Amino acid sequence: MHLLYILLILLIVTRTFSEIAVRLKLPALVGELVGGILLGVVVAAATGSSGILANLDTDQTFQSVIDLAVFFLMLLAGIEMRPKDLAKVTGKAAPIAIAGMVVPLALGFALGWYWLPDSDWKLAQSLFIGVALAVTAVPVAVKVLLDLGKLQSKVGQVIVTAAVMDDVISLVLLAILTAVISVNESISTAMIAVIGANVAIFFAIAWASGRFLLPIAGKYVQKLDMDHAEFSLMIVYGLALSVLAELLKMHFLIGAFAAGVFFNRNVVGVKTYDRLRSQTEALTMGFLAPVFFASIGMHLSLSAVVEIPVFLLVLLVAATIGKLAGAGLMARMGGFSNRQALAIGAAMNARGAVEIIIADIALRAGLFDHPQPTPPTIEFLFSAIVIMAIVTTLATPLALQSLLADRRES
Amino acid sequence: MHLLYILLILLIVTRTFSEIAVRLKLPALVGELVGGILLGVVVAAATGSSGILANLDTDQTFQSVIDLAVFFLMLLAGIEMRPKDLAKVTGKAAPIAIAGMVVPLALGFALGWYWLPDSDWKLAQSLFIGVALAVTAVPVAVKVLLDLGKLQSKVGQVIVTAAVMDDVISLVLLAILTAVISVNESISTAMIAVIGANVAIFFAIAWASGRFLLPIAGKYVQKLDMDHAEFSLMIVYGLALSVLAELLKMHFLIGAFAAGVFFNRNVVGVKTYDRLRSQTEALTMGFLAPVFFASIGMHLSLSAVVEIPVFLLVLLVAATIGKLAGAGLMARMGGFSNRQALAIGAAMNARGAVEIIIADIALRAGLFDHPQPTPPTIEFLFSAIVIMAIVTTLATPLALQSLLADRRES
Repeated sequence: MHLLYILLILLIVTRTFSEIAVRLKLPALVGELVGGILLGVVVAAATGSSGILANLDTDQTFQSVIDLAVFFLMLLAGIEMRPKDLAKVTGKAAPIAIAGMVVPLALGFALGWYWLPDSDWKLAQSLFIGVALAVTAVPVAVKVLLDLGKLQSKVGQVIVTAAVMDDVISLVLLAILTAVISVNESISTAMIAVIGANVAIFFAIAWASGRFLLPIAGKYVQKLDMDHAEFSLMIVYGLALSVLAELLKMHFLIGAFAAGVFFNRNVVGVKTYDRLRSQTEALTMGFLAPVFFASIGMHLSLSAVVEIPVFLLVLLVAATIGKLAGAGLMARMGGFSNRQALAIGAAMNARGAVEIIIADIALRAGLFDHPQPTPPTIEFLFSAIVIMAIVTTLATPLALQSLLADRRES
Repeated sequence: MHLLYILLILLIVTRTFSEIAVRLKLPALVGELVGGILLGVVVAAATGSSGILANLDTDQTFQSVIDLAVFFLMLLAGIEMRPKDLAKVTGKAAPIAIAGMVVPLALGFALGWYWLPDSDWKLAQSLFIGVALAVTAVPVAVKVLLDLGKLQSKVGQVIVTAAVMDDVISLVLLAILTAVISVNESISTAMIAVIGANVAIFFAIAWASGRFLLPIAGKYVQKLDMDHAEFSLMIVYGLALSVLAELLKMHFLIGAFAAGVFFNRNVVGVKTYDRLRSQTEALTMGFLAPVFFASIGMHLSLSAVVEIPVFLLVLLVAATIGKLAGAGLMARMGGFSNRQALAIGAAMNARGAVEIIIADIALRAGLFDHPQPTPPTIEFLFSAIVIMAIVTTLATPLALQSLLADRRES
């Protein structure tokens, strides 16, 4: 029963580091990643030996638990969104979201196209860097704003709304990216048409089923005699959209997320909804997510710092400039003060969970193995992206603290 | 992503059959098993083909989900027990529990010893039949009594208390059984001493940690800033005792169960405890347990009915007589009326979940492969035991309904 042993170790280590991080006023996520990184050092030392933690990367059993973790994490992220609240501040947030997405995407793609060696994979790799720079972590933004008591402020609402929009857009970008990776060749008009059609079909089915079928199913299920019928419905709907996403060549996490978004208060009523959210949250945040983030941290080597320091620095600067220039400038043009605009840009700069999931997908798809022999910039690209994700996630609460705290009028 | 597809199908089928069962006034468990059995027919038809459900038995990824299901199921069973309430009716319930355990155990062992072919495995196989007959399903008993509104009656309390005792005793028997199976040779004094020492060490550590360490950890954890720290503590404690049980050559489910028993109200306070129970229950009853029971049902072939009908009939009679004679007679001697004593005996006759978990452990340990070539009684023993579990689980609510309903004085 190696699985239980592995889970035990990962859970103890990550939860301990998560607590340390929270006490140091850092996001718990940072602690989980750091815990994973340190475990990664142990694993690296044990690889080749017969230790239980050795060769965890290729352990099929462990990977299935990680898949469940991603499923529940994205389901929860979807559940915690309120499509209707978003509608209110959409006018102000939309241009910020789009600029905060397009500028870093373009910067990242240009950086990749300029810097990376020529190969059949260059397009996918450049697109990956663009998507990686464009991502914004909704949970990080929400958590920081909650901690500062600024979630209900105007700046706070715009940040969250724009971040949510960016999350959805980045999932579409991820769909395109995974399609490009899985097709594994340079882009063509026919391919883009197919990807576009797949994305459209997926969202059409997700929307239609979420809008019309799910509320009927929700009402029906509540009349049943079966225990925990609503929880089962949520899981079944999440699994169904996940399988649909896979069938349409997208990553299953998009299905889980979409299912979460549509599985809102109206489907099962406020009381049941709150109970389901609490049940999903405990399982995800108290068990699966820490294990998942630790497993991501374990992938990290700091080798990018040594091997490709210049690229890493340029990546970090491009990531931060992209968000500050894109989201920040648009906010300034939309009537926010310099300080507020800077806060909005800084809040959008955290990349956190989704970023690392995307990097993990690219890693598993073999994006960092090409061309052969692998040049250093490609070999250490994953390391550089994860370092970038940690650094930007770490910078956001610190920046917001100094920009928003003690300014009651913001 | 075959895993999500498999889970989707299993969850839809089992939940549908569970609802049908509940509407037919049968335990949901029966529906889940029947759903699994029907899926098993599909799998049998698909084995050898390239269908996704084919060869599910040997799928490592699926097995890891099943392990998680067993972990959470036993953790939940433990959580739902109240050690202190049990203490009150102990005097009356203890002799019933012991007689209700010893008589079927002896009957089952004798049946195996008399009927099964000679081999090195005969002892383990006879012991397995004894344990299989001795098991009582607490959740089935509780659920039926709740449905009838008889949980708080004197008969109800004695039934639940005795069933809980039997559950603990059968876990000890299971510990001995798994040790005998894993050692894989005929019993010796030294071996019994080692098994006894292992069981004693396990329960000593579980008791000491649950009694002294866990309350301290519970208080400490509630002061932390970390989200869902209590849920993590529960999982960590469950995983720790599971790993300990494995290290001491017992099955990990005993660790999960023991952790649940000690993780009670006192550890985290009533409010947090109720929330944790709800969170564990939804995940277990709404997702993992149905998948697990379906996977058990999938193992079943009704071949025992055709191949070893006489043995199957004797097994069913021995199971029922064992519980009625053991628990029922002792209850009659303890001052209950004939009707009440019969109800107590019938309630203890349901075997449900634990039974099937034990049969599954024996199946995975290869208990039904020996001797070679496998005689029919051994080959179809698993099928016979699962049929017996389903029949007795099905008979209990029907018997209790006619024995207890409309008798306000009981």
